[in-house]
Amino acid sequence: MTPDPGGPGPGPVLAIDIGGTKLAVGLVEPGGRIAAYDRVETPNEPDLDAEVLWRTLEALLDKVLADSGAPSIAGVGVGCGGPMTWPAGEVSPLNIPAWRDFPLRDRLRARHPGLPVRVHNDAVCVAVAEHWRGAGRGRGNMLGMVVSTGVGGGLILGGRLIDGARGNAGHIGHVIVDPDGPPCGCGGRGCLEAIARGPALAAWAREQGWRPGRSETTAKDLADDAARGHPIATTALRRAGRALGIALASATHLCDLEVIAIGGGLSQAGPLLFDPLEEALRVHARMDYAREVRVVPAALGQPAGLIGAAALVFAGDRYWNAD
Amino acid sequence: MTPDPGGPGPGPVLAIDIGGTKLAVGLVEPGGRIAAYDRVETPNEPDLDAEVLWRTLEALLDKVLADSGAPSIAGVGVGCGGPMTWPAGEVSPLNIPAWRDFPLRDRLRARHPGLPVRVHNDAVCVAVAEHWRGAGRGRGNMLGMVVSTGVGGGLILGGRLIDGARGNAGHIGHVIVDPDGPPCGCGGRGCLEAIARGPALAAWAREQGWRPGRSETTAKDLADDAARGHPIATTALRRAGRALGIALASATHLCDLEVIAIGGGLSQAGPLLFDPLEEALRVHARMDYAREVRVVPAALGQPAGLIGAAALVFAGDRYWNAD
Repeated sequence: MTPDPGGPGPGPVLAIDIGGTKLAVGLVEPGGRIAAYDRVETPNEPDLDAEVLWRTLEALLDKVLADSGAPSIAGVGVGCGGPMTWPAGEVSPLNIPAWRDFPLRDRLRARHPGLPVRVHNDAVCVAVAEHWRGAGRGRGNMLGMVVSTGVGGGLILGGRLIDGARGNAGHIGHVIVDPDGPPCGCGGRGCLEAIARGPALAAWAREQGWRPGRSETTAKDLADDAARGHPIATTALRRAGRALGIALASATHLCDLEVIAIGGGLSQAGPLLFDPLEEALRVHARMDYAREVRVVPAALGQPAGLIGAAALVFAGDRYWNAD
Repeated sequence: MTPDPGGPGPGPVLAIDIGGTKLAVGLVEPGGRIAAYDRVETPNEPDLDAEVLWRTLEALLDKVLADSGAPSIAGVGVGCGGPMTWPAGEVSPLNIPAWRDFPLRDRLRARHPGLPVRVHNDAVCVAVAEHWRGAGRGRGNMLGMVVSTGVGGGLILGGRLIDGARGNAGHIGHVIVDPDGPPCGCGGRGCLEAIARGPALAAWAREQGWRPGRSETTAKDLADDAARGHPIATTALRRAGRALGIALASATHLCDLEVIAIGGGLSQAGPLLFDPLEEALRVHARMDYAREVRVVPAALGQPAGLIGAAALVFAGDRYWNAD
């Protein structure tokens, strides 16, 4: 693969966030502001062709650029659901079966020749955004994480994004919090994600007898019921909070973190989740240095994925350790 | 604090390894060879004065230098038992009560003005040595660890030593493997170290009815009995191996490691420890990228601490991220 050109040119970054429910595209300015934005639902027909999905994304890119008067751009940054090969950017998003080893980075390079095109995991992009312009700004050692349908994250240590051997560092969702716990989608057992992901939480509550008014229930319904004082819903959030606290104690001890920023749908549950989290963290993170870690809500919300994707280009010296 | 001068001068590094049982000093060449070496037992009288201990170390330094014809040295590198303030190098080694906030780095700078003087955690130095000249050579993403009286380690990610916020990254011994497990010396519960450190392992075996021939028993005795087929001793090693496998699965998922190098006394137990370790690791490290991690015995043995201390000076671009 030809290496990217060095730094970004002038203009905004064309930022792309690819998930199982939506494709989002924005023009992100160097300060992190999103100057233009559009999105479509991710097509999800059972036999969807990889090329049809690609053309859907291309149409969205064309539209956002045309609506803004076709500005010259500094580069293209992408956050995409994993797994993927990194830095090659061949993506196989779990929730998008139409793309398996789809050469996303190469396709975007062909569309935007001569510009830096950088693709990373979507949760990594959220972590990068929170470090660049959000809750971890100015901190050298941070874990940014998303607690939602899955539990993902990204690690910034020594002021730089940590990729690990294959671009997969930051997978806090697969830290083990209960070795004899429930099976995890990864094939393992007792991972944080197996307990604290929204659907697992709602399923556990239903097993305990939680009977919400609707047949299709989500972690959001569970959080709402907990806020109304429903005992099973409250216990379910305590269980997730405790699992988070244990995983974060392990990560803090291993990586000597200063700050942990938590976003994603489930983090909206507030103290019902964060109080038991803090409690478990303080029980288990007892080394002197670890007691100083702070857990904070993510600051940027939904647009974090786009902002982080743009930072891969704008601040490649810190967040892009590849060609 | 004045910053160190930039790179090393010519000559060997004066390397120091400070632990609860011995003080070791060596002259280490740029290739990693130890050209001169001496050691003394660490004085351990109950009321030992900090200055007496310092003079013991100074006498050892003088002797090693004099025996080698007082060569000009490139700098001074130190591995010391934790905790310490880093990079200031004020040390309070758990097993050396005489030193509490002892300004080791400043003292050595005063003795060797104009030279780089660098102090880090002893387990970090072992990990650095294994990356620089041992089992992790040429790998970008490695955990080096020591399983002995304690369980410590150091992280190399993206080809560089990771320090974390306060120089404490790499504390694999305090990753939680059983949240309801035994209390740990750190004040927490269910840490790897609380289960897998040698003394904890021997104590557990004695509780189960292990009755070795001697009153003073060590993990070495336990490993010897396990090698002879003693069922409780074998079970104890399996228990430690499983705890190690779980912690290493968490670390591999979080940091996307390529290789884990394990040294220290207990690692001498061989397959009786490594087989259950691999088994638990393969149960829990199931993400595609994590299945590729390799666990190997450390290659450098006892001198690793000195070799890593020297690498802080010789290869500061990778292993020393401070002034």
